[in-house]
Amino acid sequence: MCGIFAYLNYHVPRTRREILEILIRGLQRLEYRGYDSAGVGIDGGNTKDWETNTKNIQLIKQTGKVKALNEEIHKQQDVDLDVEFDVHYGIAHTRWATHGAPSPLNSHPHRSDKTNEFIVIHNGIITNYKDLKKFLESKGYEFESDTDTETIPKLVKYMYDNRENDDISFATLVEQVTQQLEGAFALVFKSVHYPGEAVGTRRGSPLLMGVRSDHKLSTDHIPVLYRSTKDKKSCGALSRTAQDTCLFPVDEKAVEYYFASDASAVIEHTNRVIYLEDDDVAAVSEGRLSIHRIKRRAGDYPARAIQTLQMELQQIMKGNFDAFMQKEIFEQPESVVNTMRGRVNFDDNTVILGGLKDHIKEIQRCRRLILIACGTSYHAGVATRQVLEELTELPVMVELASDFLDRNTPVFRDDVCFFISQSGETADSLMALRYCKERGALTVGITNTVGSSISRETDCGVHINAGPEIGVASTKAYTSQFVALIMFALLISEDRISMQGRRREIIQGLKVLPDLIKEVLSLDSEINNLAKELYQQKSVLIMGRGYHYATCLEGALKIKEITYMHSEGILAGELKHGPLALVDDLMPVIMIIMRDHTYTKCQNALQQVVARQGRPIVICDKEDFETIKTINIINNHKGLSHCIKVPHGVDCLQGILSVIPLQLLSFHLAVLRGFDVDCPRNLAKSVTVE
Amino acid sequence: MCGIFAYLNYHVPRTRREILEILIRGLQRLEYRGYDSAGVGIDGGNTKDWETNTKNIQLIKQTGKVKALNEEIHKQQDVDLDVEFDVHYGIAHTRWATHGAPSPLNSHPHRSDKTNEFIVIHNGIITNYKDLKKFLESKGYEFESDTDTETIPKLVKYMYDNRENDDISFATLVEQVTQQLEGAFALVFKSVHYPGEAVGTRRGSPLLMGVRSDHKLSTDHIPVLYRSTKDKKSCGALSRTAQDTCLFPVDEKAVEYYFASDASAVIEHTNRVIYLEDDDVAAVSEGRLSIHRIKRRAGDYPARAIQTLQMELQQIMKGNFDAFMQKEIFEQPESVVNTMRGRVNFDDNTVILGGLKDHIKEIQRCRRLILIACGTSYHAGVATRQVLEELTELPVMVELASDFLDRNTPVFRDDVCFFISQSGETADSLMALRYCKERGALTVGITNTVGSSISRETDCGVHINAGPEIGVASTKAYTSQFVALIMFALLISEDRISMQGRRREIIQGLKVLPDLIKEVLSLDSEINNLAKELYQQKSVLIMGRGYHYATCLEGALKIKEITYMHSEGILAGELKHGPLALVDDLMPVIMIIMRDHTYTKCQNALQQVVARQGRPIVICDKEDFETIKTINIINNHKGLSHCIKVPHGVDCLQGILSVIPLQLLSFHLAVLRGFDVDCPRNLAKSVTVE
Repeated sequence: MCGIFAYLNYHVPRTRREILEILIRGLQRLEYRGYDSAGVGIDGGNTKDWETNTKNIQLIKQTGKVKALNEEIHKQQDVDLDVEFDVHYGIAHTRWATHGAPSPLNSHPHRSDKTNEFIVIHNGIITNYKDLKKFLESKGYEFESDTDTETIPKLVKYMYDNRENDDISFATLVEQVTQQLEGAFALVFKSVHYPGEAVGTRRGSPLLMGVRSDHKLSTDHIPVLYRSTKDKKSCGALSRTAQDTCLFPVDEKAVEYYFASDASAVIEHTNRVIYLEDDDVAAVSEGRLSIHRIKRRAGDYPARAIQTLQMELQQIMKGNFDAFMQKEIFEQPESVVNTMRGRVNFDDNTVILGGLKDHIKEIQRCRRLILIACGTSYHAGVATRQVLEELTELPVMVELASDFLDRNTPVFRDDVCFFISQSGETADSLMALRYCKERGALTVGITNTVGSSISRETDCGVHINAGPEIGVASTKAYTSQFVALIMFALLISEDRISMQGRRREIIQGLKVLPDLIKEVLSLDSEINNLAKELYQQKSVLIMGRGYHYATCLEGALKIKEITYMHSEGILAGELKHGPLALVDDLMPVIMIIMRDHTYTKCQNALQQVVARQGRPIVICDKEDFETIKTINIINNHKGLSHCIKVPHGVDCLQGILSVIPLQLLSFHLAVLRGFDVDCPRNLAKSVTVE
Repeated sequence: MCGIFAYLNYHVPRTRREILEILIRGLQRLEYRGYDSAGVGIDGGNTKDWETNTKNIQLIKQTGKVKALNEEIHKQQDVDLDVEFDVHYGIAHTRWATHGAPSPLNSHPHRSDKTNEFIVIHNGIITNYKDLKKFLESKGYEFESDTDTETIPKLVKYMYDNRENDDISFATLVEQVTQQLEGAFALVFKSVHYPGEAVGTRRGSPLLMGVRSDHKLSTDHIPVLYRSTKDKKSCGALSRTAQDTCLFPVDEKAVEYYFASDASAVIEHTNRVIYLEDDDVAAVSEGRLSIHRIKRRAGDYPARAIQTLQMELQQIMKGNFDAFMQKEIFEQPESVVNTMRGRVNFDDNTVILGGLKDHIKEIQRCRRLILIACGTSYHAGVATRQVLEELTELPVMVELASDFLDRNTPVFRDDVCFFISQSGETADSLMALRYCKERGALTVGITNTVGSSISRETDCGVHINAGPEIGVASTKAYTSQFVALIMFALLISEDRISMQGRRREIIQGLKVLPDLIKEVLSLDSEINNLAKELYQQKSVLIMGRGYHYATCLEGALKIKEITYMHSEGILAGELKHGPLALVDDLMPVIMIIMRDHTYTKCQNALQQVVARQGRPIVICDKEDFETIKTINIINNHKGLSHCIKVPHGVDCLQGILSVIPLQLLSFHLAVLRGFDVDCPRNLAKSVTVE
């Protein structure tokens, strides 16, 4: 995953300094998507002649975070920051490596040749790059990086050098290139042959455009231009003149355009955005935006809406916290309320989910529920599986999206498939969604991102409304996904008399949940003290069962992600089938023991760990005096044993309360170990490649 | 798998007490081969007249380990332990049930009739026993047990009762019997009609003879006597006189002979042994040993060497191995054959599972398969889930028994639930079985233990016939469970025309599997060298996807269990959702990359690990030159990267080949770390408590 940002000012004079500042700030907003190297491509030349300057593209690239790139820019001798451009188009990229290690050579923009005729920024993976590279090498193109991306600028130049029509447009050229590409991509192009022109396209990876103009827009829909595939000749013939049929904004000269991987990078400039769809080619030429597609298919909506975003920039800033992740942990009393807002009525114990209401009958008739997701979202499925089984009385399967696809899992018309993803762009989940749709299953999205691919392509769904999550390690999205799935279970069982008592219990449990979360968050300094005892450990095991198995998996993932300690979530019921061998007086073991139907079995597991000289750290009900006593005895004898006492809620909601201490623990461990909590090494926020 | 032991003393006077002690001790040495019931057959009668005593064979049998048999012997009122025999022949057996639950009636020796004219001990499986039984019943023979073995003594008696030649030798009689048998066997016979004479034979199952004499042996090779098949008349005519042509030892009277399944049972008596070959019939008559074969084939060596063993007793029990676990790893080429024996027909590509045949229609009508298990058995379910889904086109769920119970998982009348357990006594699996039965589901057992609770309480099932597994860390049971589930998938799809190509491919893949396993086992010393580089590490990650996800889980469990290193199996598709943060230049990462439909994705995962400075250890196809090249480059630059190259089989069976290197690795790691491989701390072989 990478972050893409591009900026075109048309008759809005900007110095090169201003342009670079805009590009760098855009990248910084997208840094959560990747930060192992970054680069910009701008018009070079320091003359007063625009034509001359645009004939010379300059690339500046650096390994590391965006900050390092900014420093590199200011070191450049040959860049006059005060040159002013009335029209300029610059592109920028922050990378998260998939092919080729982080290095200036492997970072974007990539170029067609040493004179930078064409440059490209890319988010995604080109799966057929080896074939393309072989072909292009046979034509004499010399490659300089290890990336898949580099084939793209080479291929554009090849297409350009071999064009049939001298008048070929930049958009058509890009269209020809993307027809040769396999895999997932969002791409933005710049060329010396098309000065002041911008082209972007996507397939599988996210890309949106922002538009800023002081003048009123002439339309709130951009019509899509289709090129008939029958008319072979016109393939290369969609000339600049043809594009002029779609003008926007009409008769206004001054306008600025932005390309970005998501809205956080453009929101400080404009709130008017267009979400591009797969295979859209968006082109700006002479200040006019047009959107092209090769062919119209049944069901295509032949225009793209210009949406007005309500998101505040402030919303995506850290506030008083040291890290976004910490901020997001402490937001949970509010974010779960936002998830329930307008949906759960605590007075008459009803649930309304607007996004499902047209499909609820169909869902009730289904034979099976399948929850499909990756990472933390998968854990939200594991966490709520039991209550879904209980309230729906249906078989519920929870699948890792990649494994689900690898297995070519049988899916039927009477299945209902859920796709859970914070970003709504998770590549594997999105692929699984398309796989299930093809097989006729009803698809339901559970996402945090309105307008995301999953929320657009599912038949129906629930937005969890947790607000943007910046920390790479997901926290508030997990608890909101958890609540959203609980709400679904409540909704689907609304008509069952025998379920009413249980439903009431859960709904009233949801009502007090925010207060209970606050109570758990008040344990923060106690957990910080525990982290001080643990942070030098290499490994940690987290054990639990029943409703808390998911907490173990999720807690272990949090610790893995940001502390790089080897932590593993273990089903306590499997202890004797192997993992118990790991337990000795050195290995830290965190155990979750709650007063529910597995309590006795959890006590057994605790006894087994104690019998093997283990010194367990227990997360338990604050009124579970039996467990607290056991732990106190161990602690008095041998030290290093602890009890984290959380309030008691309804059994099937308790997983929300048991996971928060582990979120806090992972945060404090990471800080103590000296790591950047929000930017864990090797990871990116949302995984938009397979 | 069972243990066979027999003892013949010729002009070496022994009391019955001494004889029984020798038989019992022999059985105890073989107890690792099976221990669910045991029995002996000796000359009965308490008179001073040898002739009279030999006309009366006495059987003593008991359920349980050999110790229980010994206690039973001493309880017998009618056995005078002080009677002395100058010549005596006794046979003994310790059983591991394959057909018929452990019980005195089902245990060996089996007999021809109520007067014990012929008795037999058997190790192996007679695959055509049903046909033989039907034939013999039609002739008026009455069967008393549920075993396949019982057909053999009945058949000997039938041959004897219908002999053409009054002078027929015991060896010829046995030869006639074995010509009717299909399957695998080692057999030792005793009869009232041939007092003081012993006959043993084998095909597929091991059998050796020990010889003890104070006198020098006249030869160190026993010539093989061939009977021309052309000379039909001589079939029954190889008389006692004919045998006299091969005397051994010449002119010496006092000699003792032993038959045993392996040398561990005879080494305390003699170090001179003869390993019998398939279809050898070894006979002792009047103290003289002769070896018979029907026909000489090209390349046959016409004599059997008398070898002198240099081994220590302990060494022999484990064979050439340091631990039972190691021995069981190396038994896998045979144990998988035993699982398929009599079930898979490689000529007409059919599968027969006797234990399912009455329920196969019902299974075919079901709506869902649920595989329920714990630990390694659970991994066997994960490993075969995809091929079950593919061939049955049914939804397949794989559940950890404890979690399945904790969740009160909905189960319906049209579900088929599998319970996989080596011991058949795993408490959680057994509880889950009862839970599913209550809800009306059809239950199927997949166990290694006939007569176990799971095999008794399920509606039907498959015995994996892997033989007893002594090492606490399961190895050969896993691969046999894997094969058993594959056979089930093949059986259930037998009637589907569209599946025939795929079925043929898999069945032919099963045919070559034992040879491929041998090839993987030949990597042992290479893997030992790898273990030397890794054994001081604290953590290890094992990554793979598709068919090899289960291998990762199982490999990590093996390492956990016996090396106490923190190892974790990770789905490679989840790498970017968290675990990639753990990867650096220190963490050992084992990756499984096979040439199947996930190959490209696995390559991507490899590139990601490499891009993060990881030094992966890869298990790959031996002809995957791309991966091998990548690893060689890393190894040349940074060292510590490795390729373990395994042969390529059918995709869905490849998991058997990929797991064996990890079994070997865990073994060598444990040895290098100085741990007792067979008795890991905190763990027991089968978990019979919740």
